[in-house]
Amino acid sequence: MNPTQLMAKPIGRVENGADESTALDHWTSVESRIVLDPSLVGGLSGLEAGQDIIVVFWFDRSGGFDLLQHPKGDTSRPKRGVFALRSPHRPNPIGVSQVHLLAVEGNVLLVRGLDAFNGTPVLDVKPVNHP
Amino acid sequence: MNPTQLMAKPIGRVENGADESTALDHWTSVESRIVLDPSLVGGLSGLEAGQDIIVVFWFDRSGGFDLLQHPKGDTSRPKRGVFALRSPHRPNPIGVSQVHLLAVEGNVLLVRGLDAFNGTPVLDVKPVNHP
Repeated sequence: MNPTQLMAKPIGRVENGADESTALDHWTSVESRIVLDPSLVGGLSGLEAGQDIIVVFWFDRSGGFDLLQHPKGDTSRPKRGVFALRSPHRPNPIGVSQVHLLAVEGNVLLVRGLDAFNGTPVLDVKPVNHP
Repeated sequence: MNPTQLMAKPIGRVENGADESTALDHWTSVESRIVLDPSLVGGLSGLEAGQDIIVVFWFDRSGGFDLLQHPKGDTSRPKRGVFALRSPHRPNPIGVSQVHLLAVEGNVLLVRGLDAFNGTPVLDVKPVNHP
């Protein structure tokens, strides 16, 4: 396997009230602000409140990974492979979530349902469909 | 904005018959092999033929990006922001596609519908749902 390393750079950060102590079952109602680097604001043209978007982010607090993990850390359930799980503990700690876009205000996207802690680096935002 | 650089490493590569000369309208029927690093094969445990999976990959031939782009390069359509497009030309050239898993054979996933050229580095594989 080619050992190439690929360099990604955050385009912005998540701001919300969720940290490591937040109960994980309530992400669907969490509102977050995705604060983009102001130099990228032109790239938001065409995004509209009310649509769903895909947010790609970096699990910056995930530490390492095991190939086999209990689903959601629930030790009463049998382990599965990491690629059959959405665990943040992955070879590349990249999260992909479909969220609801509530508003676009300058370089800030207000979204609901993003399962990422406050301060999480954001790598990309995409529409769900292919315009 | 924190200038952190995040380092990703391919977990595998795409093998298919699609290259830069392939017509872009036919991805849905393209069959690809995702050949994982053999050391990661344990991470596939629990993936089953017939399910849909999300493949995260790196657009390694995308070059740079413009903040505003014509959808699918069609100059007859007005430009939109890169975050309102699925264009491969992005600040972080990361692709995210939902594909159909046809078979799992050792360290190889056979999938249909992956819109990635032969040789594309794969960063992650995830189930669509949260098991």
